[in-house]
Amino acid sequence: MEYPSNIIKELVESFIKLPGIGKRTALRMVLSLLKQDEENVKKLGELIIKIKDDIQFCSNCHTIADGEICTICSDHNRNHKFICVVEDHRDLIAIENTKQFNGLYHVLGGVVSPIDGIGPDDLTIDSLIKRINKQKIQELVFALRATMEGDTTMYYVSNLLQKNNMKISAISRGISIGGELEFADEITLGRSIINRTSYSIN
Amino acid sequence: MEYPSNIIKELVESFIKLPGIGKRTALRMVLSLLKQDEENVKKLGELIIKIKDDIQFCSNCHTIADGEICTICSDHNRNHKFICVVEDHRDLIAIENTKQFNGLYHVLGGVVSPIDGIGPDDLTIDSLIKRINKQKIQELVFALRATMEGDTTMYYVSNLLQKNNMKISAISRGISIGGELEFADEITLGRSIINRTSYSIN
Repeated sequence: MEYPSNIIKELVESFIKLPGIGKRTALRMVLSLLKQDEENVKKLGELIIKIKDDIQFCSNCHTIADGEICTICSDHNRNHKFICVVEDHRDLIAIENTKQFNGLYHVLGGVVSPIDGIGPDDLTIDSLIKRINKQKIQELVFALRATMEGDTTMYYVSNLLQKNNMKISAISRGISIGGELEFADEITLGRSIINRTSYSIN
Repeated sequence: MEYPSNIIKELVESFIKLPGIGKRTALRMVLSLLKQDEENVKKLGELIIKIKDDIQFCSNCHTIADGEICTICSDHNRNHKFICVVEDHRDLIAIENTKQFNGLYHVLGGVVSPIDGIGPDDLTIDSLIKRINKQKIQELVFALRATMEGDTTMYYVSNLLQKNNMKISAISRGISIGGELEFADEITLGRSIINRTSYSIN
């Protein structure tokens, strides 16, 4: 692609390094920056420059934090004996937004995936085990993706915790609320029958 | 949405001001910045800060330029008597990428759209008329969107140029190359029959 200006070209090339952004979207973004208030645009630039220096990761659960301990881990109203294991920060935010979980999290930083060269040592599994032993965690719920890699990771971690007398669970899988059965994939639909929940009229 | 960190929240809020970027995409972009090299991220931030100050608009055709005159207008190998009228910079870049046009451009900055409060005075129509009179332009091709607003703009400008003895044309409309007839909308298909081009075996 030809660009009318060098700075436009460089910006497009920087934007396409972000996930899901192609050349056309990047160009639209750059041209829209030109139309925005100078103040907004400068602020965006400054925030991007700051992000790598300012962001820290919680020393307890490894999520993004403004300080050494994240706001979730330092909240005394939450259940500190209940941990939800997630792959990354996005999953944590998604679960937080449901407002259905009152425990703490542990961000693994990925799942075990030999094909991508990611082994257990690349994740924060060690830190999770230490945390469980030290803080006397009572329950662990895995909220990992429903793939071979997610299942392998869950199996690997559960195996390390066999001696610990704690409750281990995984989030339920099944048909989405409001989802049409005919559009569900066979595996999900099959599993939703195997894992059926009891229903009674009180 | 709840975010684990203030800078993440502010960045997401800045990103969603860009076109086509929702909260989820913005968050993905921000989290991917955290994983990129520090150098890349700083460069992106610096380019964004610079863009509003560094970018100029060509005083001849109003496109984005690094100097007072854009690279296209200062190219002596191009036909300076032939102007393609486009709505914005993206359309200019799209046409440049076809490598089928060797004239100069004129960026209107939009189309006449009373419903959006955009009148002829909000566009660079005045500058186009002056340019045509001063530089003795011989041909004008309109490459505007095929909507009521695009057509109105084309009509308005053509009307102002009635006295000028120049060729005025518009890009052809019809079925896309490789496009299936059954998926084409009726108006386009109908117009493609009316505007049929002659075909002969030599």
